[in-house]
Amino acid sequence: MKITALILAGGKGERFWPRSRKNCPKQFLSLTGDGRTMIQKTVERILPLVKPEDIFISTNQNYKKLVLEQLSDIPEENILCEPVGRNTAPGIGLGAVYMRKKYEDAVMLVLPSDHLIKDEDTFRAVLSEAIETAEEEGSLVTMGITPTAPETGYGYIRFLREDARKNAYKVERFVEKPDLAKAKEYLADGGFLWNSGMFVWKVSTILDCIERHLPKIYSNLAAIEAAIGSADEEKVLNAEFDTMPSESIDYGVLEKEDSIRVLPGDFGWDDVGSWLALGRMRSLDSDGNLLSGNTVTTGVSDCIIEGGKKLIAAVGVKDLVIVDTDDAILICNKENTADIKKIVENLRNGNGGQYL
Amino acid sequence: MKITALILAGGKGERFWPRSRKNCPKQFLSLTGDGRTMIQKTVERILPLVKPEDIFISTNQNYKKLVLEQLSDIPEENILCEPVGRNTAPGIGLGAVYMRKKYEDAVMLVLPSDHLIKDEDTFRAVLSEAIETAEEEGSLVTMGITPTAPETGYGYIRFLREDARKNAYKVERFVEKPDLAKAKEYLADGGFLWNSGMFVWKVSTILDCIERHLPKIYSNLAAIEAAIGSADEEKVLNAEFDTMPSESIDYGVLEKEDSIRVLPGDFGWDDVGSWLALGRMRSLDSDGNLLSGNTVTTGVSDCIIEGGKKLIAAVGVKDLVIVDTDDAILICNKENTADIKKIVENLRNGNGGQYL
Repeated sequence: MKITALILAGGKGERFWPRSRKNCPKQFLSLTGDGRTMIQKTVERILPLVKPEDIFISTNQNYKKLVLEQLSDIPEENILCEPVGRNTAPGIGLGAVYMRKKYEDAVMLVLPSDHLIKDEDTFRAVLSEAIETAEEEGSLVTMGITPTAPETGYGYIRFLREDARKNAYKVERFVEKPDLAKAKEYLADGGFLWNSGMFVWKVSTILDCIERHLPKIYSNLAAIEAAIGSADEEKVLNAEFDTMPSESIDYGVLEKEDSIRVLPGDFGWDDVGSWLALGRMRSLDSDGNLLSGNTVTTGVSDCIIEGGKKLIAAVGVKDLVIVDTDDAILICNKENTADIKKIVENLRNGNGGQYL
Repeated sequence: MKITALILAGGKGERFWPRSRKNCPKQFLSLTGDGRTMIQKTVERILPLVKPEDIFISTNQNYKKLVLEQLSDIPEENILCEPVGRNTAPGIGLGAVYMRKKYEDAVMLVLPSDHLIKDEDTFRAVLSEAIETAEEEGSLVTMGITPTAPETGYGYIRFLREDARKNAYKVERFVEKPDLAKAKEYLADGGFLWNSGMFVWKVSTILDCIERHLPKIYSNLAAIEAAIGSADEEKVLNAEFDTMPSESIDYGVLEKEDSIRVLPGDFGWDDVGSWLALGRMRSLDSDGNLLSGNTVTTGVSDCIIEGGKKLIAAVGVKDLVIVDTDDAILICNKENTADIKKIVENLRNGNGGQYL
């Protein structure tokens, strides 16, 4: 069966301010030092499994130009722009109806555009088994990540070892982001995986699920599907999204379905949730620093410094993230990266619109 | 007797990098938030006692243009440029021979150009008594500062309470910068003052002392004096400085003289030795921060931030000095401001000449 992919690239990615901006969120940034952006790396990672013309991008008009520039091998008609964000169920459903129209049926990978994976061979091996499972069993397959720490920032998946198809286990239940005590329990238990937000299923399977669990969304999608290729396509898309309910694929479909499979993955996954990810992804110097660009330091340790045009001179500092851009520079304690959102909010609510 | 002043403005002032640069050291910077530079404030502080045409500036050719721009009321011929730095004795002596040529004799204030004084009325009252003492007694008078902390960065002056002319005490001895234990002793003792580097004496007195203690320097100075106003003036100045020994006024004269007076001053003196001085001189916000320029902060305390054109966004940081300029930004732990010199050295020894 044809293998396709839907890359989710509509996120705002404010946690990487001041590099990420309203018009250039995280997925379009190069953060790994190799000059490739997150979305380019996402696509390149699956090219051994999926042809460029079978890759679809779910985004919106604000980012269409960036997608075209950064992913020149992907046909323009595969760039699907949601008129308005309605969470993941409508976005994934939209990809699915475009695929049904083009291929009748296919195996569909659903992948975020802003994650990193160190061990790509292992990733593709797990993905291949997910594809086989989704195709042969007709099940919804999620990619789980073997936890390495009691993370409180991720959702967890409880799986049943006794119900397995090779390495694909039956999901017992999805668990919301836990507090630290619960997270420690889950880690010790061994029966929990992180929810990565990567899915594999047949187009027919997911649309069938949406039809059963989210009938209003399904009818909106069916109306759009009928208009694909017609002169009315854009008008219908706008009108249907206007009345489309907002719903996540996790809550609206996965948590309501009974037979979902999860494949445990151990391939150096990182959701790149904050500037601290750079320190995990790249090698540090002997003082624990990650320095790039125009910097001069003395007595500096455990810092991440991304220099720009201006010389950054750091003296006697520790555990800071310093990021220079043309019009703004961030100086953030490593423990407080979550508060970068507060800065973005302050700028939005004040007179800082030019920095968003 | 005529009252004159010699303002010492030849220093390099690297401790205020990146604001201070090779071509614009600390004395020419505005650091107090009132738009006036250190040397402008130094001159304005003494204007009730000294006329602008009787104020001389000791500097060098690199800074002459800055002096002219910043001190437009001072006659150009009063700007004395040393061809080469030979420490303070030749610099002060040069001022003295120009004054002897012009006034025969005068009381001469010698003042650094990069200190700050909060209580200027008290300062001028102490200065007036110093002038009276120097004129009537013919003594060398130094301005001492009543210590408020066991500072290890200053020299100290031990004075004799029993030998006093009003508030001017006889100096027992000068003491080098002490270690912390010694500094604590001096503070507790009560018989020690900080050496401020501000002096008052008659032109005739200091030249007589230089002649006795530093005869080679005196003969160089006398040759220069003879050429003042002649066509050879600059040629002679260059030639004499070429063979001039290097010597400080403290070591070369003051420590060798027997009858020196010190006037204890308690007028909010600050030698502005590092960026931390800004936090002492200006009022802080309720989080202990001194913020200026283009900044946005969250969870920031006890920081000094001098913003420039670029937006500085600080998150969760404490005890930092952050200074933005057009081509460089400093991020320095408050405990490590002395290491800013290391950065300047690194730039000088490396490829950072453009930032000096």
